Amino acid sequence: MASLTESLQNITMSGGGAYSLATRGAEDVINAATPIVLEALDSINIPENQDLFTFSDMGTADGGTSLKMVGNLIHAIQEKNPGISFNIVYSDQPKNDFNGLVQTVLGLGHFPSYLETTENVYPLFSANSFYKQIIPDNTLDFGFSATAMHWLSGKPCELSNHVHMVGADGEEYLRFSEHGKKDWETILLHRAHELRKGGQLVLLNFCRDEKGKYLGNTTGVNMFSNFVKIWQDFLGQGRSSEDEYKRMTLPQYYNTVEEFSAPLKNFDSPVYQAGLRLKHIETRITPCPFAEAFKDHQDAQRFAEEYIPTIRSWNESIFFGALDQNRALEDKEKILKDYYHSYQDQVLVSPETHRMDYVHAFTVIEKI
Amino acid sequence: MASLTESLQNITMSGGGAYSLATRGAEDVINAATPIVLEALDSINIPENQDLFTFSDMGTADGGTSLKMVGNLIHAIQEKNPGISFNIVYSDQPKNDFNGLVQTVLGLGHFPSYLETTENVYPLFSANSFYKQIIPDNTLDFGFSATAMHWLSGKPCELSNHVHMVGADGEEYLRFSEHGKKDWETILLHRAHELRKGGQLVLLNFCRDEKGKYLGNTTGVNMFSNFVKIWQDFLGQGRSSEDEYKRMTLPQYYNTVEEFSAPLKNFDSPVYQAGLRLKHIETRITPCPFAEAFKDHQDAQRFAEEYIPTIRSWNESIFFGALDQNRALEDKEKILKDYYHSYQDQVLVSPETHRMDYVHAFTVIEKI
Repeated sequence: MASLTESLQNITMSGGGAYSLATRGAEDVINAATPIVLEALDSINIPENQDLFTFSDMGTADGGTSLKMVGNLIHAIQEKNPGISFNIVYSDQPKNDFNGLVQTVLGLGHFPSYLETTENVYPLFSANSFYKQIIPDNTLDFGFSATAMHWLSGKPCELSNHVHMVGADGEEYLRFSEHGKKDWETILLHRAHELRKGGQLVLLNFCRDEKGKYLGNTTGVNMFSNFVKIWQDFLGQGRSSEDEYKRMTLPQYYNTVEEFSAPLKNFDSPVYQAGLRLKHIETRITPCPFAEAFKDHQDAQRFAEEYIPTIRSWNESIFFGALDQNRALEDKEKILKDYYHSYQDQVLVSPETHRMDYVHAFTVIEKI
Repeated sequence: MASLTESLQNITMSGGGAYSLATRGAEDVINAATPIVLEALDSINIPENQDLFTFSDMGTADGGTSLKMVGNLIHAIQEKNPGISFNIVYSDQPKNDFNGLVQTVLGLGHFPSYLETTENVYPLFSANSFYKQIIPDNTLDFGFSATAMHWLSGKPCELSNHVHMVGADGEEYLRFSEHGKKDWETILLHRAHELRKGGQLVLLNFCRDEKGKYLGNTTGVNMFSNFVKIWQDFLGQGRSSEDEYKRMTLPQYYNTVEEFSAPLKNFDSPVYQAGLRLKHIETRITPCPFAEAFKDHQDAQRFAEEYIPTIRSWNESIFFGALDQNRALEDKEKILKDYYHSYQDQVLVSPETHRMDYVHAFTVIEKI
């Protein structure tokens, strides 16, 4: 099994807000969840004499997608507790681009920052991933994470016939689901330590929903099946090897609602015993913003040119890492260029069948 | 007057511990101050039920020079309060290389990190410079800074005949000293807000000592005069312009012991009124490690090759920024290469006259 560092080292997003620009949908998800965030916030009793509120955004990448929501949260709290100060703790794994994150949060990148309209707000950055404790015991008021916790702490095994656990079966599926279960428990246990009593978590995680839908598989082409099909074509053409094909395995797990809920409902679970309780869980589909825009503009070329980068932003580095180490850099780059080009050609032929809708479980958790 | 961002934007140190490698002397200074740090720590009454200790390293660059000292501090506290947790807050201005800082602090760079031998320690990173408040009111137990606070928040004026205020006179000197006074007050006032009652600051700042000595001016060649002389030569040879010569002004101020002490002793000062008190101040000369090594190895070439990078590490970016914007990049690089080469040639000719001894004021401050 790959170590956390090994498995995460290729998952670096590009800097200065570029990731957020390419993933407008991920920001839509967070904005859609803002009412749930504010409701969870409302249920926290912040005493008048509490002078510090600590918020944490875990797996934040470049920090761009949550800027508006964090601003809303700060304003909502300061309306009731005008004198209060904030620690806003942004965390991601050590290979994240912290320079880009700093630029975005401080409003020096592509987006305006809430720091321009707020006072007594102290942004802090941590290079502890959510598989570690990020801040000391009993210091967290509100924890948040969006579209991040599907990344496993390691790869349990290669999938022989698919790139993602959504298409795995048999022993391989079991190994992924066991790993996913353990990782979810680890994530929650660290949060149980960090949270004060009464503190809340709002986690927006990719999931497989009640109807079996998941990212890029809501209607039309199944994005993940398409990833596999194109790699199979490359294998058939001799452009990639059997070993490479097998290594094209994303270290991700999409939990179901039942899997997300289990440790928060089961009396015997160490997570339950540490005081975490499920307050709310629902699944949500957030429409692919590029496919939605295509309905209006009907420009297939424009759609394809917007759509492929949003896919590429989160899986190119994994596919790159799966290519044989002995290949020359230019060779690797050519393969990936052609790979996404094949996908883009398909989008141009039948644009109306492609869309990367986001399928999330919105989860609200309380520490009692 | 240049804004903070403008004046600081060129002061970026290179990443992954490279800065600390080039500035071994800066680490020697911190290690020499460790007894003073531990003594200041000893004077803090940490109640048995205090579960969190917050330490801040301001102007940390890549974090490498303070690693040992921070480890010593953590171990000293945990011996008395075994269950206590730590926030270790590293801060520097937004243009700092935070990716390099993260690598160094997490022990992924050139140096081992104290994180390998400690528990319940949470490193956090802030992009607020010491000219801003870094963490909320009353949350800081121990603040530390080394070899950083001589950087002014802006450049009060260009020095017409020198690169540094140590060689300024008349109106220009006054403008620097007024700016330095205001900046020192600003730095202290922010710390007064951050510190809890009884909290301590240990600040190791470049100074002009009781005998008029300062960095690179202890015996032999005056390093700053030499900087000026070589730029004058370049001007005379037509290699740089009058405007460029004038802009070769470092935005720095070296306080005297009296200047450091004034706001901490003067009843009328807002710093004094905010509760900061001077507990201890002394000046210290830390020998240039490369000149000391030369005494043993007597290899002028080796000395010159070690000595020039330590100078270059902190002033090249400033000199670079002073060169005309219309010059081609290669032209600028050639000028600077030749500039440091001229310096290196001098070192080769009379190595025993060159040494960049560090001259610091070690200051201990308490919040009452």
